[in-house]
Amino acid sequence: MNVVANVYRGDQMESSHLGHIAVVDQHGNLLYSYGDPDRLTFARSSMKPLQAIPIIETGTADRYQLEPADLSLCCASHSGEPRHRTRAMSMLERAGQPEATLQCGTHVPRHEESYKELIRAGKPLTPVYSNCSGKHAGMIATATHMGEDVASYHLPEHPVQQRILDVVADITGYPREKITLGIDGCGVPVHRLPLVNYAWAFAKLAKPEVIDNPVRQDAARRIVEAMVAHPEMVGGESRYCTDLMNAFGGRIFGKAGAESVYCLGDRERGIGIAVKIEDGGARAIYPVVNEVLRQLGIGVDGALKTLHAYTNPPITNMSGSVVGRVETTFQLLQENRSIC
Amino acid sequence: MNVVANVYRGDQMESSHLGHIAVVDQHGNLLYSYGDPDRLTFARSSMKPLQAIPIIETGTADRYQLEPADLSLCCASHSGEPRHRTRAMSMLERAGQPEATLQCGTHVPRHEESYKELIRAGKPLTPVYSNCSGKHAGMIATATHMGEDVASYHLPEHPVQQRILDVVADITGYPREKITLGIDGCGVPVHRLPLVNYAWAFAKLAKPEVIDNPVRQDAARRIVEAMVAHPEMVGGESRYCTDLMNAFGGRIFGKAGAESVYCLGDRERGIGIAVKIEDGGARAIYPVVNEVLRQLGIGVDGALKTLHAYTNPPITNMSGSVVGRVETTFQLLQENRSIC
Repeated sequence: MNVVANVYRGDQMESSHLGHIAVVDQHGNLLYSYGDPDRLTFARSSMKPLQAIPIIETGTADRYQLEPADLSLCCASHSGEPRHRTRAMSMLERAGQPEATLQCGTHVPRHEESYKELIRAGKPLTPVYSNCSGKHAGMIATATHMGEDVASYHLPEHPVQQRILDVVADITGYPREKITLGIDGCGVPVHRLPLVNYAWAFAKLAKPEVIDNPVRQDAARRIVEAMVAHPEMVGGESRYCTDLMNAFGGRIFGKAGAESVYCLGDRERGIGIAVKIEDGGARAIYPVVNEVLRQLGIGVDGALKTLHAYTNPPITNMSGSVVGRVETTFQLLQENRSIC
Repeated sequence: MNVVANVYRGDQMESSHLGHIAVVDQHGNLLYSYGDPDRLTFARSSMKPLQAIPIIETGTADRYQLEPADLSLCCASHSGEPRHRTRAMSMLERAGQPEATLQCGTHVPRHEESYKELIRAGKPLTPVYSNCSGKHAGMIATATHMGEDVASYHLPEHPVQQRILDVVADITGYPREKITLGIDGCGVPVHRLPLVNYAWAFAKLAKPEVIDNPVRQDAARRIVEAMVAHPEMVGGESRYCTDLMNAFGGRIFGKAGAESVYCLGDRERGIGIAVKIEDGGARAIYPVVNEVLRQLGIGVDGALKTLHAYTNPPITNMSGSVVGRVETTFQLLQENRSIC
């Protein structure tokens, strides 16, 4: 049984989580695994860095003068803080589109104070509060720049989504015709591929020079540079993606996805890591990612220490007392096979 | 692998949940199982009906004229609706104790409108909003009635908690000295026993005449009668416990616990059912309970139909479109052994 983490109440095990891990280098060699590294997985929001590439390739980013912080927001599952909403609105404005163009739907933002302000003012939630509003603003800007129908940018057959599918197939190295689609929480297509291919994609983003197409290579480099230059746009205050990238000071870029997926790239060693928690619950994913990094010897001298709050997160009760903890339990298995 | 439910996005499996099930009759015979029916499990709030028994046995309920609706609230993980808060406050008042005596801590209540009202009024959350405030009010009333220290009612060594431990050991049929303790989300001791023993306890509550001690038998009967007479106090609007008991019109009583536990009793057939989802996530538990009932032929002619929203709950996106579903996957295994 591929248990990756146990949850303890006191010193007794209460619940446990299964998981799958793939560690792949930029040449497509599977280096380490746990569970099923080939598990077919909807990567959800962890593919946002790939979904952002066409914004640059199409010339949209230059046309609307998107700054690195804007591009970082296009890769975000942000908390809906004022800085995120202001920037998403500004991107839409530069493309000449109103907020109502956003097809991401609405949800209560993680940033509590922003939600409370709305309640106090008696105002409804609007789509810009959605954690995906940056990604959608980028898609809308692209459709506008390309002279395509803007209202239907979120549908699978729209050129915006078709370009994304091309990029995903190319950078993951997985045949386009084998990629199956679902609909993501924010209404756009989401792709289902083996975990190893996501890890390979992040390894390539970590070392963009392995991407043959020079336009794509440049776009990939700009996206990663934008994420590590503006980690605060990818998540927000007290968010793992933001804290991870801040801790590693440019070496690591990472992105979480719903249903407990995480993908990250190590720009120093040129490896990509993809993790999926089988049950989709959020609790185990960051401890597991931290433990993968530790076992690979990445950041053990410092960066991981600043992320210690995510390593064995305490379980607290409603009075704030610590009554348990999450503990990882896995040992990566050494592999040596090409996935190409 | 004891998978109990898969989560689909479109027609592709996205995540899955392991689980454990025990079905036991009032005489302590394990009738059906899945996964590990002996799994050591913190039952969490699903043991509230047992935790409420000393309120009656000590004479507290009669002393403070607790009505059936009050006793039902003592078994609740309620949503913090006005009717729940008013009744919890009234119980405290009858015992002459202020709200500040509650040691359950605070959390955002499920009842959104109650939370929004607080925000609009600029008021802080208080303990009566906690889903456990009824249980704690009952404990406080008991300590007051017995002339025990009220401030420390939540600590493991306090007579209130020691009496509960006696009741849990007695009705589950599990040796008191083998029960290990943790601290629950609301700060009181929580017990860890094999799943089969919880199922047996609920089978006994379903047929209290098998409980030898006449005072305990009467208390158990009053608790169950209170729950089925006032299901709205156990949960609230659009809550499974409430809807389940309403659907079965007195035949079934059930109680959810944190980390995805469910216990229920069938008063017609005299059986108890206990379920634990291994990963502790809430999503799979109600579909699994509904499917256990279906496989046992309980409610298939009507009651389960009114609970259909819980059977294969849709996964919706932020725009409200259905993009997936939860599906159960298990087949109960016939057993025939005594757990006594």
